[in-house]
Amino acid sequence: MKLSELADQLNCTLRGDDCDVNGVADINQAGSGDLAYISSEKYKKFLSVTKASAIISKEEWLMDCELPVLITEDPRLAFAKAASLFNPVKSKTAGIHPSASIAEDALIHASAVISANVVIEAGATVSADAVIDAGTVIGENVIIGKATQLNANVTIYHGCTIGENCILHSGVVIGADGFGFVREGDSYFKVPQLGKVHIGNDVEIGANTCVDRGALLDTVISDGVKLDNLIQIGHNVEIGEHTVISAASAVAGTVKIGKNCLIGGNVGIRDNIEIADNVIITGRTLVSRSIKKPGSYSSSTPIDDTLSWRKNAARFRQLDDMAKRLIKLEKEKQ
Amino acid sequence: MKLSELADQLNCTLRGDDCDVNGVADINQAGSGDLAYISSEKYKKFLSVTKASAIISKEEWLMDCELPVLITEDPRLAFAKAASLFNPVKSKTAGIHPSASIAEDALIHASAVISANVVIEAGATVSADAVIDAGTVIGENVIIGKATQLNANVTIYHGCTIGENCILHSGVVIGADGFGFVREGDSYFKVPQLGKVHIGNDVEIGANTCVDRGALLDTVISDGVKLDNLIQIGHNVEIGEHTVISAASAVAGTVKIGKNCLIGGNVGIRDNIEIADNVIITGRTLVSRSIKKPGSYSSSTPIDDTLSWRKNAARFRQLDDMAKRLIKLEKEKQ
Amino acid sequence: MKLSELADQLNCTLRGDDCDVNGVADINQAGSGDLAYISSEKYKKFLSVTKASAIISKEEWLMDCELPVLITEDPRLAFAKAASLFNPVKSKTAGIHPSASIAEDALIHASAVISANVVIEAGATVSADAVIDAGTVIGENVIIGKATQLNANVTIYHGCTIGENCILHSGVVIGADGFGFVREGDSYFKVPQLGKVHIGNDVEIGANTCVDRGALLDTVISDGVKLDNLIQIGHNVEIGEHTVISAASAVAGTVKIGKNCLIGGNVGIRDNIEIADNVIITGRTLVSRSIKKPGSYSSSTPIDDTLSWRKNAARFRQLDDMAKRLIKLEKEKQ
Repeated sequence: MKLSELADQLNCTLRGDDCDVNGVADINQAGSGDLAYISSEKYKKFLSVTKASAIISKEEWLMDCELPVLITEDPRLAFAKAASLFNPVKSKTAGIHPSASIAEDALIHASAVISANVVIEAGATVSADAVIDAGTVIGENVIIGKATQLNANVTIYHGCTIGENCILHSGVVIGADGFGFVREGDSYFKVPQLGKVHIGNDVEIGANTCVDRGALLDTVISDGVKLDNLIQIGHNVEIGEHTVISAASAVAGTVKIGKNCLIGGNVGIRDNIEIADNVIITGRTLVSRSIKKPGSYSSSTPIDDTLSWRKNAARFRQLDDMAKRLIKLEKEKQ
Repeated sequence: MKLSELADQLNCTLRGDDCDVNGVADINQAGSGDLAYISSEKYKKFLSVTKASAIISKEEWLMDCELPVLITEDPRLAFAKAASLFNPVKSKTAGIHPSASIAEDALIHASAVISANVVIEAGATVSADAVIDAGTVIGENVIIGKATQLNANVTIYHGCTIGENCILHSGVVIGADGFGFVREGDSYFKVPQLGKVHIGNDVEIGANTCVDRGALLDTVISDGVKLDNLIQIGHNVEIGEHTVISAASAVAGTVKIGKNCLIGGNVGIRDNIEIADNVIITGRTLVSRSIKKPGSYSSSTPIDDTLSWRKNAARFRQLDDMAKRLIKLEKEKQ
Repeated sequence: MKLSELADQLNCTLRGDDCDVNGVADINQAGSGDLAYISSEKYKKFLSVTKASAIISKEEWLMDCELPVLITEDPRLAFAKAASLFNPVKSKTAGIHPSASIAEDALIHASAVISANVVIEAGATVSADAVIDAGTVIGENVIIGKATQLNANVTIYHGCTIGENCILHSGVVIGADGFGFVREGDSYFKVPQLGKVHIGNDVEIGANTCVDRGALLDTVISDGVKLDNLIQIGHNVEIGEHTVISAASAVAGTVKIGKNCLIGGNVGIRDNIEIADNVIITGRTLVSRSIKKPGSYSSSTPIDDTLSWRKNAARFRQLDDMAKRLIKLEKEKQ
């Protein structure tokens, strides 16, 4: 592909000579024919040593770079698009593998790909261009939208719906029972989990993440939400459009999260609270109350060498006492 | 079903006219024929607007509610029971799906349900009325108790035993090797994990939760324990009866947890400690020492806006120094 | 087996009479014929009551123990080796189960074990003595090294390589897409994840742990690394030789961890940082910056009863203010 054609497709300005590019690569690994990029000023030092044939960059980072450059205000986005152009998702052959177990009344579109050992139960629908990888189990009356990809060994419980153009990675479990029990005498009575999970369009869900079904109402993951690996989403949670949650976070039941939030890794969100739109929560934060205003929120404590940390941590248990003694000293001063 | 019959079955008092009810619903979504409930005083405002045909409530929340009501001291429990009555677990047809791979000497009760692609290895037993969903793998000599349900894509390693009336959700792994290695020169020698996992009756285990097998002795999950999703239970852990653990918690090896404990989400419990009966641990707590008395325990720090948090967190590393300076000021005062 | 033979094989010194031993057991459960051990001085009280036939111990813990003893400086290591000798891994019969789905051009060594419902896609290689348990899915062009064991329901995405003598436990997902998205207008554009995962030799990976593929370069797990259950390893992470990570930890993208590190449970490591060789990180620590020197590092706060904790935690939000007031008092003093 000519770099000039790529400039057109990516909405970039070409600086320097046109050339052929046939792939993307990391700037330090790139060779002849490769397109590389820099995502921040601190990487501009690599421009003089890279063996790439062309670069994507902001104009101000370029200095005296002699390579052909695609100039853009968002090099990461342009590079991601170039990477997609050079690496289209390999299309698989439509059809049902003979080892798949498909209920008689399941509706499988002729353009769908159903791989080895897939199980599709009664009343389920798999739409056009959907790809269901090996070992995935689709429960009764589930609906899988157009061009959605379920990787290997995914499980979707009965009645859940997955939208269009979604990607669910291996080990994902959608629609397991929410965690609801009521004490009865010495033991617990299980609260039937009668709701479902609705997942919108363009949602990506990382490996081994779990989204529980609702108790009475449904758990709802809106369009464009991105969930990383090993995340827990409790029953009756609602997540607004284009909210992103990083790995190993856990959202307890009946939490409502707004749109366009950025939630870091290892965040915990307690049950029955609401988080507004456009909220940023930094990694490892425990969200113990509703957040009503956009902004950035944090908790956690800083890392230290273990000996120093131990001394400081011990003082944490005296904090209230220290505060009171400080007040006393201040009063005596007056 | 007549509301009066339901009152009998649920041990509630009927106030108002008898009527027909044919299902349960959320109080705000309920329509004609639905039974709804309120679980706390703050929801009593919904009583005047709900379209439900009848309500379950405590008497004191009712005020001038004009609907027929089932009065009880525990509306959540009565409602959960009503929900179960109206939504019995659908019984599946007993038998073995032709795609299942069953070892010749495995004992499968005639009333058990073995779904597509299930694998059952040598010497395993599946008891009466057990339901094994698609893709689940049951290792050698495993015993699955009566009426226990293993959802799709569960894995049980060799030699483990699961009691009666248990529910294991998809992605659960029971009996993987505990994490035991001994340093030997530059590398590690694997400690053979020769114990098993014993799971009692009426245990529910959430999606993608792991319970490791013991090193020499067994890991034991007692009757009535409820584990939420994505929980780690290390080798040789013992959990007492009717203890409940919420999602994304992790229990390190050789921990002994008592009966009737309530352990919140995202809790971490270090290895080789004991927790007494009737202990409550709030969400995100790190349990770094044994807990010998019943009561409620916590750690973690509060959420704040990121700028304020950053200033306070930085001071955490000065806490011991601050405490000493405070003492010095107090001494000088005297 | 004679205890004296065992002494030779384990490089221990035999004190007392020779005897027959035919297995290993916990010191409190051991019976006649069993070999038991004590791993620390605090267990030496069991020496006088155990019913074991022989003991492994350090010399200084023995006192007046009358049993035959294998004396060593590292009883845990000697016992682990004895346990291995008495419990060799059961060899399974080589061959391909008829229910497995194997691509025509996949290379499966004749000595490999391919269990029921395994799926092996085009171009994949399974080396000599490898054991692939039921329901495991091996993607296109994956290479599985010699004598490596994949337990049931593991998923390996296309192009990843697993070294020799590895053990991957059930539910492990290797090579799912890293979490990379670039904002574009109202939504996100997916960054193609073009790298792979390379796993070295002698690596063990616990149940339901996830290792994501790299974006451009590869994610690398070096020889001898041990990962516990439910761990998240982000894209482009590199983990040095013989580093050990305990359960429920999460490592964000592009982190470089050195050799011989010991990382506790529930640790979080933020993206784009480096951790030196020989670093110890205690459980539940949040690593928010690079660690350049060997040593032990910690964060987190101590557990307390909930009432006391609540008071102290509230003061955390006043820490910066308290520090400033303390400084003011000190100045006024001068």
